[in-house]
Amino acid sequence: MKQALQTIDVATSGPGLYDITGKIVRVLSQSAIKEGLLTCFIRHTSASLLIQENADPDVLADLENFMRRVVSRDQKLYRHTTEGPDDMPSHIRSVLTQTSLSIPAHEGRLVLGTWQGIYVFEHRDAGHNREVVVQVMGE
Amino acid sequence: MKQALQTIDVATSGPGLYDITGKIVRVLSQSAIKEGLLTCFIRHTSASLLIQENADPDVLADLENFMRRVVSRDQKLYRHTTEGPDDMPSHIRSVLTQTSLSIPAHEGRLVLGTWQGIYVFEHRDAGHNREVVVQVMGE
Amino acid sequence: MKQALQTIDVATSGPGLYDITGKIVRVLSQSAIKEGLLTCFIRHTSASLLIQENADPDVLADLENFMRRVVSRDQKLYRHTTEGPDDMPSHIRSVLTQTSLSIPAHEGRLVLGTWQGIYVFEHRDAGHNREVVVQVMGE
Repeated sequence: MKQALQTIDVATSGPGLYDITGKIVRVLSQSAIKEGLLTCFIRHTSASLLIQENADPDVLADLENFMRRVVSRDQKLYRHTTEGPDDMPSHIRSVLTQTSLSIPAHEGRLVLGTWQGIYVFEHRDAGHNREVVVQVMGE
Repeated sequence: MKQALQTIDVATSGPGLYDITGKIVRVLSQSAIKEGLLTCFIRHTSASLLIQENADPDVLADLENFMRRVVSRDQKLYRHTTEGPDDMPSHIRSVLTQTSLSIPAHEGRLVLGTWQGIYVFEHRDAGHNREVVVQVMGE
Repeated sequence: MKQALQTIDVATSGPGLYDITGKIVRVLSQSAIKEGLLTCFIRHTSASLLIQENADPDVLADLENFMRRVVSRDQKLYRHTTEGPDDMPSHIRSVLTQTSLSIPAHEGRLVLGTWQGIYVFEHRDAGHNREVVVQVMGE
């Protein structure tokens, strides 16, 4: 069995979804693993991972807007407010999405559907440098 | 290390949960892998995966109803409306649930609890053919 | 390739987050696997898993409060009410969080970020004994 592990840096500039599909696919290609399992893991609790539609950018805007409606920024609702009104909502939005993603690889390609892209979901207002660990195991 | 990969087709007929536990268990049995990791991956962004209670069908109905309450179908809330009022809510419902599931196998069985079943959660009004990739790695 | 599997027992005493990071790290240490993948799987549908901030306990209280706001306990909303007002909300809260977590291991350590802890999220009012299966695969 072979293994590969790389950390990808993703520079964000405010809330929303950042497509990292190309970077993830590159880790698989460089690993030369054809059959196996790829795992993405984000090392943060105020940004998360997501697989979503990659065709219409309106989907990404609607997702961001949904999160704003369902996760209030009203600071009276929270105890943890030291870093501002986007602090605790960012943790909650992370909880409602993913910290890790598991994607099988087959014949050297991820088994993603035609319309699936892999995204970092930034929840903080300020830009951040986000680290995503990408690991591949297989043959 | 051994590996097995199969794609399972799941025909749905409208919103709700479809039990695929038997089909997933069959992939593990056929792989002859006794100790390892099974990964399920759904190749869609308007249907998702879920592990939930398999005893009382009322749980499944209540889950569907919860999703309808929390994810509005009011088209004024969305930009992405080309495929109808169930389109964007389906993407959001997928985001709130799972695209991939990881389940260890031990002594030739999945380590599911007594009350756990594996489900495809269909979010679109129309029936669809959904593809779930099932991969097993181990010995 | 080496594998290890252990079941961890977590005694809970009502709704909220229980830190199991130390117990999970111990399974990795005992496995002597340096490079690989660790999977946590909870064998229940009314408690779940989560990776969240481990620094400020207020974050954990705010998460519990968010779940109470978004997942109503009003029994008129549910069909599945036999075990009381916390029954169906517990299933929904599990659906909105995780049943399994995948965390790569590198140089004998989980690749968790500085502020990330691993938690069991208990959703029932009564204390329970929760089983978390921890599996490691790698070299």
